[in-house]
Amino acid sequence: MNTKEIKLKPIGIIHTPYKEPKGMPIQGKFKEGVTGKIEVFPKYQKGLKDIEGFSHLILLYYFHRAKEEKLIGKPFLEDEAHGIFAFRSPIRPNHIGISIVKLEKVQKNIITFSEVDILDGTPLLDIKPYVSHFDSRENVKNGWLDKHFKEGKIPKRTKLG
Amino acid sequence: MNTKEIKLKPIGIIHTPYKEPKGMPIQGKFKEGVTGKIEVFPKYQKGLKDIEGFSHLILLYYFHRAKEEKLIGKPFLEDEAHGIFAFRSPIRPNHIGISIVKLEKVQKNIITFSEVDILDGTPLLDIKPYVSHFDSRENVKNGWLDKHFKEGKIPKRTKLG
Repeated sequence: MNTKEIKLKPIGIIHTPYKEPKGMPIQGKFKEGVTGKIEVFPKYQKGLKDIEGFSHLILLYYFHRAKEEKLIGKPFLEDEAHGIFAFRSPIRPNHIGISIVKLEKVQKNIITFSEVDILDGTPLLDIKPYVSHFDSRENVKNGWLDKHFKEGKIPKRTKLG
Repeated sequence: MNTKEIKLKPIGIIHTPYKEPKGMPIQGKFKEGVTGKIEVFPKYQKGLKDIEGFSHLILLYYFHRAKEEKLIGKPFLEDEAHGIFAFRSPIRPNHIGISIVKLEKVQKNIITFSEVDILDGTPLLDIKPYVSHFDSRENVKNGWLDKHFKEGKIPKRTKLG
């Protein structure tokens, strides 16, 4: 059994208008007209070569405000409790978050993006290109979430209260 | 500037038929008929409640065999060099991998999955449900990759040589 600790380092900081969770969408695509900036630390800037050809990026980051760790909890979308691996809450065993964002502009070590659902000051761990040939799936079953998106509707609770 | 080290712990181990990279697809969806097993450590088993309702999972894991760190490199699909954040290579600053896999079965703390592109013995960091309402995007530009998938074709180099 491999239980050795794994050490990571921030490669940048994510700057957004959301100083607090209140008003932030549960997924960036549910709130238009908001942009954020990814500040990639200058020592990693070279790694951004050719990233501007992608329309979307997958950001991996550290939920720096999450202090708790739970295995069962209630997602924001409903009052039923689920296992932590069946929803996206920050209070999971490893506090890693993932967001798919829309790339707007790259200038030196700064990436401007839209579709923002990340708190200001979040430490960035990785950027991967979103590749439709790899990351899109058909015939998806979305477990407890499907009932909230019936007939293409967007549920009411998409912003944190 | 927040450069504080971040500590994570494995929450399980991923078991697959791929003892070495040779023969492994660059994305699991390019090779059918292969299954793997996720062994979630028993202390985290409760967190799997309701996960069986999802058809696909996003796995985050540690590239335990990656010893190098590069900012520029050649992806497996072509001989042109790109920035590390414009492709998916393990030799990135933080050795975190992401795979979307197909959930086949959950039995206690063991998840059987298909669409396998992960080496045997890989430490698991997190499981998130794949949610089509969150994770699918339209009008995607895939940078340098699009030319390899013209007219819906699958490129030849989809298995590691």
